[in-house]
Amino acid sequence: MAQKPSIPKGTRDFSPVEMVKRNYIFDTVKSVFQKYGYLPIETPAMENLSTLLGKYGEEGDKLLFKILNSGDYLKKADEGLLAEKASNKVMSQISEKGLRYDLTVPFARFVVQHQNEISFPFKRYQIQPVWRADRPQKGRYREFFQCDVDVVGSNSLLNEVELIQIVDEVYRLLNINVALLLNNRKVLSGIAEIIDASDKIVDITVAIDKLDKIGLDKVNEELASKGLSQEAIDTIQPIIMLSGSNRDKIAKLREVLAASEVGQKGVDELEVVLNYLDTLNLDLEVDLDLTLARGLNYYTGAIFEVKAKDVKIGSITGGGRYDDLTGIFGLKDVSGVGISFGADRIYDVMNQLELFPKADGAKTRAMFVNFGGEDELYALRILKEVRQADINAELFPDSVKMKKQMNYANKKEIPFVLLAGEEERNNNVVTVKNMETGEQSKVSVDELIKIINI
Amino acid sequence: MAQKPSIPKGTRDFSPVEMVKRNYIFDTVKSVFQKYGYLPIETPAMENLSTLLGKYGEEGDKLLFKILNSGDYLKKADEGLLAEKASNKVMSQISEKGLRYDLTVPFARFVVQHQNEISFPFKRYQIQPVWRADRPQKGRYREFFQCDVDVVGSNSLLNEVELIQIVDEVYRLLNINVALLLNNRKVLSGIAEIIDASDKIVDITVAIDKLDKIGLDKVNEELASKGLSQEAIDTIQPIIMLSGSNRDKIAKLREVLAASEVGQKGVDELEVVLNYLDTLNLDLEVDLDLTLARGLNYYTGAIFEVKAKDVKIGSITGGGRYDDLTGIFGLKDVSGVGISFGADRIYDVMNQLELFPKADGAKTRAMFVNFGGEDELYALRILKEVRQADINAELFPDSVKMKKQMNYANKKEIPFVLLAGEEERNNNVVTVKNMETGEQSKVSVDELIKIINI
Repeated sequence: MAQKPSIPKGTRDFSPVEMVKRNYIFDTVKSVFQKYGYLPIETPAMENLSTLLGKYGEEGDKLLFKILNSGDYLKKADEGLLAEKASNKVMSQISEKGLRYDLTVPFARFVVQHQNEISFPFKRYQIQPVWRADRPQKGRYREFFQCDVDVVGSNSLLNEVELIQIVDEVYRLLNINVALLLNNRKVLSGIAEIIDASDKIVDITVAIDKLDKIGLDKVNEELASKGLSQEAIDTIQPIIMLSGSNRDKIAKLREVLAASEVGQKGVDELEVVLNYLDTLNLDLEVDLDLTLARGLNYYTGAIFEVKAKDVKIGSITGGGRYDDLTGIFGLKDVSGVGISFGADRIYDVMNQLELFPKADGAKTRAMFVNFGGEDELYALRILKEVRQADINAELFPDSVKMKKQMNYANKKEIPFVLLAGEEERNNNVVTVKNMETGEQSKVSVDELIKIINI
Repeated sequence: MAQKPSIPKGTRDFSPVEMVKRNYIFDTVKSVFQKYGYLPIETPAMENLSTLLGKYGEEGDKLLFKILNSGDYLKKADEGLLAEKASNKVMSQISEKGLRYDLTVPFARFVVQHQNEISFPFKRYQIQPVWRADRPQKGRYREFFQCDVDVVGSNSLLNEVELIQIVDEVYRLLNINVALLLNNRKVLSGIAEIIDASDKIVDITVAIDKLDKIGLDKVNEELASKGLSQEAIDTIQPIIMLSGSNRDKIAKLREVLAASEVGQKGVDELEVVLNYLDTLNLDLEVDLDLTLARGLNYYTGAIFEVKAKDVKIGSITGGGRYDDLTGIFGLKDVSGVGISFGADRIYDVMNQLELFPKADGAKTRAMFVNFGGEDELYALRILKEVRQADINAELFPDSVKMKKQMNYANKKEIPFVLLAGEEERNNNVVTVKNMETGEQSKVSVDELIKIINI
């Protein structure tokens, strides 16, 4: 019986047109990662629930997709709990595996599990889907790809610099205008330290972030309302009003944070990174931004975020340094730094700005119209040469009406259509039609290859 | 608390070394698929169970990984069934989604769901993991990749030919010696028809397959034991003993199957395909093999199988023509033909024969030893030029002991190590060490690029 087919909410099919664009993004980031010595790993879609549970907070535990045990899965479930319909408690008795929720926890698990095979510093990238039972909404999916690049086992700030180089190169290749926001967790700790308010650091960054919108007085009011003393507010005035070049900001921060050891360390780190970047002459705009506070509990040093300058959209790349990725799995003191490229948002930005190349190496460049018989064999012979020149080309498989064949070429956006009948065969040429301009000419195979090549 | 990390049985982590090799295979097949006008699609890992159930037989239904509904999943479950622990019946009340079991059913679902956006003939490839709750054993995993290429919406035998061309080109590029076995379901139907034993066709192919091992008499005995009349056995003697060139076999088959319309049709199809292949001058060995009977219920025309000639292993590629892929989802009469490349087996063959290229474009070509300070900055400057030449290269991030750095380069199998101290800096050169031969020389950046490029 016929079923009306559909897919689970929050998931997506990707058509050839979408896949070619997505692969353009993935291939670009991969090529850059590899240029800097990062290599791919992949981990299973399913992880043991013992690996996943408790790593993403209570809410995260709920958003994990759990996989039902195989076979007679209820056999060992507790009758009493079943009768009570205690969904949560029964869960651990009927499900042992879950779909991965991000790439970070599986990466940590991978590093610990394979620590004896890995040579540190371990530079890896990982591009795989993750699954979250979130309420689907515009731009939020239950299955989406993450694209992470990390180096673990090295404290060198050169790694931070390298990741910024990677950001610079990726977005240069993708033609997206970006600014990289840079902060350092230790600076934020320093601020909290000098005013003795380490529990208020999020409130402070949130308030500072509003300066442009609501003005200094309102920011100070908000800080007071969050419980900061007048003295504390006075102390951090220079930080709230921090402005000028990155160097100006560094100098001011060093002054204000003089009394905080960790704060000074943070300023040092920022300065070292900025010095490297100066030497490297990057095009990338790098802005020191103290309001940047993503994943505070997680990061311990540098914090990065990348924004597209020509499209209003959240950050398209982000990351930072963490000091204890693998502790939860029993391997202490493995520091690392990493960033994650947001493929879906990058896709949206590029679509909106029409940055995808029209001629993509994956797409078909030319289609032969099929006239059957001798003409078909001639077309096959020509195609062999065309493909040997590494050009994607096809022959319509049926010698049906011209209109149908041209329709196919049109829909598939094939830029050149080739025609060859008796006349072409006798002269060993091909008629090539440029589908955009409508121009048509009779050419030799060598000329044809020159014309249709990207 | 520290947990000993592990992954679910039957699943795998892929290390960088393995990933580079796997990607070499995937990139090769993709490039060939695209050369013939096939483009990628991707479908979600999760499908509705209504899409999956009933498509793989009763055993297949059991092997599907089911995903537990989110939230209070037991709420709507029937109390009586829970009390009975009726795992199967409860399942449909607590799970609506499953992980895809193959790429064929999702592809059929995709074609039906998007039929109005697709231009037929639809040429697509799909490379994604699938999941089966099979008992894991050597070479059989619960998560593995399928790599399918299909064209649907065209009856032309040119499609069969094109897939054979693809097989030829893929294995030429991968350097694997293969033979393609070819059969046609209609020929098998014809054989069954002339002896009026359509239920015996599997028994017949199985018996014929043993000819080399057990000899003609035993084969005939086996056929008799399966219930074939002496007359039937006599009739198909020429088929059992079919030998010689593909053309000889075609001629003999045409004779024996003279009385069967469907049989003649099958012979015609085989002949057309072989004629095309002759015109195309393929290197590929193509053997007509009547014992080839994979997925009999599924295929309706051509049947293919590819065997590696230098390694004892099952088929590494297979497929055929099917006439009703999408009927189950309500779209009738969509004929298609496709093949599937077995990535895991291809990987094993290439590993065993050491066919993976030593120098792979994904791997790091050169590593700079980090001497810190000015030397580090000099290295960064050189690296910028090296990377601009599209060469993967890195700088060890910490200026630690030479031995540790060399160890890293060794373990990562980086073929060239670069060194630059004061002397090199002053002369604007780099010392490059070939890690295989131990040779060392001082060269300019331009020379360096020539040396370390693949």
